Amino acid sequence: MQNKPAASPLIPIDPRARGGLQKQIYAGIRRAILNGTLRPGARLLSSRAMAADLAVSRTTMLLAMDQLRAEGYVTARRGSGMFVVDELPDDLPQPPVRINKPAATHPPLSRRGAALSATPPASRRLTGPPRAFRIGSPALDLFPRRVWSQLVRRCLKSLPAAGLDYGDPAGLPALRAAIAAHVGASRGTHCDADQVFIVAGAARGLDLLCRVLLDPGDLVWLEEPGYSGAWSAALGAGARIHPVRVDDEGLDVAAGAGSAPAARLVFVTPSHQYPLGVAMSLPRRLALLRWAGSAGAWVLEDDYDSEFRYSTHAVPCLHGLDTGERVIYVNSFSKNLFPALRLGFIIVPKDLRRQLFSSRSAADMHPPVLDQMVLAEFMEGGHFERHVRRMRAVYRERLEALAAAAERWCGGALRLRPVRTGLHAVADLVGVDGESVYREAAARGVEVTPLSAYYWGEAQPVEALVMGFAAVDPAALNLGMERLAAAIEAAARPTSRRRAD
Amino acid sequence: MQNKPAASPLIPIDPRARGGLQKQIYAGIRRAILNGTLRPGARLLSSRAMAADLAVSRTTMLLAMDQLRAEGYVTARRGSGMFVVDELPDDLPQPPVRINKPAATHPPLSRRGAALSATPPASRRLTGPPRAFRIGSPALDLFPRRVWSQLVRRCLKSLPAAGLDYGDPAGLPALRAAIAAHVGASRGTHCDADQVFIVAGAARGLDLLCRVLLDPGDLVWLEEPGYSGAWSAALGAGARIHPVRVDDEGLDVAAGAGSAPAARLVFVTPSHQYPLGVAMSLPRRLALLRWAGSAGAWVLEDDYDSEFRYSTHAVPCLHGLDTGERVIYVNSFSKNLFPALRLGFIIVPKDLRRQLFSSRSAADMHPPVLDQMVLAEFMEGGHFERHVRRMRAVYRERLEALAAAAERWCGGALRLRPVRTGLHAVADLVGVDGESVYREAAARGVEVTPLSAYYWGEAQPVEALVMGFAAVDPAALNLGMERLAAAIEAAARPTSRRRAD
Repeated sequence: MQNKPAASPLIPIDPRARGGLQKQIYAGIRRAILNGTLRPGARLLSSRAMAADLAVSRTTMLLAMDQLRAEGYVTARRGSGMFVVDELPDDLPQPPVRINKPAATHPPLSRRGAALSATPPASRRLTGPPRAFRIGSPALDLFPRRVWSQLVRRCLKSLPAAGLDYGDPAGLPALRAAIAAHVGASRGTHCDADQVFIVAGAARGLDLLCRVLLDPGDLVWLEEPGYSGAWSAALGAGARIHPVRVDDEGLDVAAGAGSAPAARLVFVTPSHQYPLGVAMSLPRRLALLRWAGSAGAWVLEDDYDSEFRYSTHAVPCLHGLDTGERVIYVNSFSKNLFPALRLGFIIVPKDLRRQLFSSRSAADMHPPVLDQMVLAEFMEGGHFERHVRRMRAVYRERLEALAAAAERWCGGALRLRPVRTGLHAVADLVGVDGESVYREAAARGVEVTPLSAYYWGEAQPVEALVMGFAAVDPAALNLGMERLAAAIEAAARPTSRRRAD
Repeated sequence: MQNKPAASPLIPIDPRARGGLQKQIYAGIRRAILNGTLRPGARLLSSRAMAADLAVSRTTMLLAMDQLRAEGYVTARRGSGMFVVDELPDDLPQPPVRINKPAATHPPLSRRGAALSATPPASRRLTGPPRAFRIGSPALDLFPRRVWSQLVRRCLKSLPAAGLDYGDPAGLPALRAAIAAHVGASRGTHCDADQVFIVAGAARGLDLLCRVLLDPGDLVWLEEPGYSGAWSAALGAGARIHPVRVDDEGLDVAAGAGSAPAARLVFVTPSHQYPLGVAMSLPRRLALLRWAGSAGAWVLEDDYDSEFRYSTHAVPCLHGLDTGERVIYVNSFSKNLFPALRLGFIIVPKDLRRQLFSSRSAADMHPPVLDQMVLAEFMEGGHFERHVRRMRAVYRERLEALAAAAERWCGGALRLRPVRTGLHAVADLVGVDGESVYREAAARGVEVTPLSAYYWGEAQPVEALVMGFAAVDPAALNLGMERLAAAIEAAARPTSRRRAD
């Protein structure tokens, strides 16, 4: 490997110490070889460069290296410089000592840290590439990679050197304008480009917002069942979390208003409740806005998956119904483009812009500039609209395949609830519990998540599975369903029940 | 513009409402045109696509469009579909109404939010490309863009579809391995790749750590003067901040231990104090570790700029001296590569890995996968090492140019303190205050930051400037210094003093 990077161990040198520089350098490099900092076969920097690094003369450096070579620690290869030997000499002047560090004596995590680290992500992924029935992943193999690559090349070429510097803390202006145009045309709400802030995904947006809108101890409504990212963001801000149940019309506003009237913030997924998939009814939307107005509460609307409607009339987002500027809109490009991109956005009231701008700028964290440029061009060029439209047809087909396969393989044991929007379905289990099915399915290489994993409070979940249908094609969905049927059968056997206890 | 994206306004449709679907669609599109959701000249989706969108028959859609065309709201262009007219008809059946939204009635920010948004970023940037004496920006025009672009192309090509999915919450394994090898060889510390977490810059790393290590009300030492990112992270976590003064040997450990012995966390920049530039002495480092051990406190070491040493022997990082696993190492690629990349990393104790992994995974926020891949290849190919080495020589030259220009233009009015590491200098002012000089310099297109901007507590700062020397070449530094001399002269005049009052 010609390009192998050259190593230069960091040697603490004290010019006043006894024994002189040469000995210190010799001892330092030897120690680095013995304790493994310099691995066998590692290429060393040239003696000239190392001398410069350590601020010693080249002669001193050469003398130290000569000694190391004489003792068999390093070896020279013609034309390529010095290398640590592959096998250390047997007759080491001093055998390598394994330093036994004492057991960690550091303090524990904070209470918040412990609570955060005990919050598992709700969806249960197996490792490896997309498979049936992964949640949260779109059809990655159908992403127009060639168009994206062309735009990356073009942006890399046209980016001025100043484009490598820190960017606008609110995000790239061109991308913010493209997003404002997009939500205006397709989500039934208005905003100016400068109300849009680009964030590293929806979870990061919630995080940023909880931080500036909540003080420790503030009360927050979260949907039950609900999204773990909202749970983490609220916990991270030190909020008290009040789970509010979700029914067929979405968040039960009356229940929340009755049990936690003093909440300061509500997190809600009105277009497509996560994970149940129901749309919030118009009366509920209006009730939520009325309540928030009288209670003086913020509403964070996560509008994820709203592009993927299959059979319903579109309902404008809550943000579009809000006249009091108390709804903050959050969305992500993870589902309509791809999750590895880590881009999303929030839309904030005009009079919050300056404050959010400076709190974010102090924390110094806009997403990478190049990614924002590429996405802006992707949207401006109409590729985004085209891709979403194309995917809508693909996902409709996959949803039909899911329903057909469930019917074919699982019969009455798995009952799919109607899906009108989004990339996942909820399926009720009959006579078997979700946790057992999850385990048996995982053992067969099939990903399903028990609905119970999305419950955080005291509500009693029904036995059901949450199943994605977007990530793989109809054939893979069918095969996955065949295996899932076997998993359900296995989970229903008495032995498996015992194991679950 | 052939590629102009087509718009489809979101129309709320109620199948039970009086007047039928056609009338609702007509009214909805008209409303969107009148209120500006659909801009003049906007291209509409095909009637077929709109019908599918709204889940109505194409005939219904065509009838609604005919009415809109007859009334002059939309127009057809042969072969390109329907467009909103550029000029709206004068005899509108109903004039456009400007909806006067009531003034915002939303709640205020939280106390924390208000405090965060009142934290200005310390360094004072003017808008526009790099200029003398920008802080925190490296020589962006010397970044090996061609190599980087080649790697981007290669990674985009080789990335499997699964690479577009969510990645490892701790970061890309190949990048973590490259970083572990790098700090092992050049920073005098050891870690395994799985102790490395990739974060979106150092500030984001501090943010993540403060969140899991601190509870609201916990006491934190911050350096005074110090880094605003650490201030934000501590504030964001709800911590109580105790500023501890910095002298010629770095953080004054005895002062901190005397005034705030119960601190739970210390933030420190030992290699190159931000912004003073001093290196923490070995006795101080040992005292800090001893104190942290007895107090049960965490130490967050920000090792920024440590690659750029000019004349001193390298001092191993604090992390390498720590035997109690209480030091967490933080670094960024903003200075040694480029800020727009938004990548950095933290190194955590082994027994914290699992907890940090799950709290991060719940919050769902690894940096973009492609950027991580490219950086991993950049490091593995030896490009990182080469670039840093090359830049070290460039920055040494620029530092010399800065000193020569200060001598030439400012004489005794500006006294540069010695610079041994990093990309900025501190310069004492004589007989004039930093704020006035900042204002006069900004008026002349020159960026300097008063040292006082980095003080948060009660300590009385001396009048000095913080000046970057890496972002522009010697000629630009010289020109900037000529202008700065004029600014200092102007600031010293009585009128300017009055303006400052």
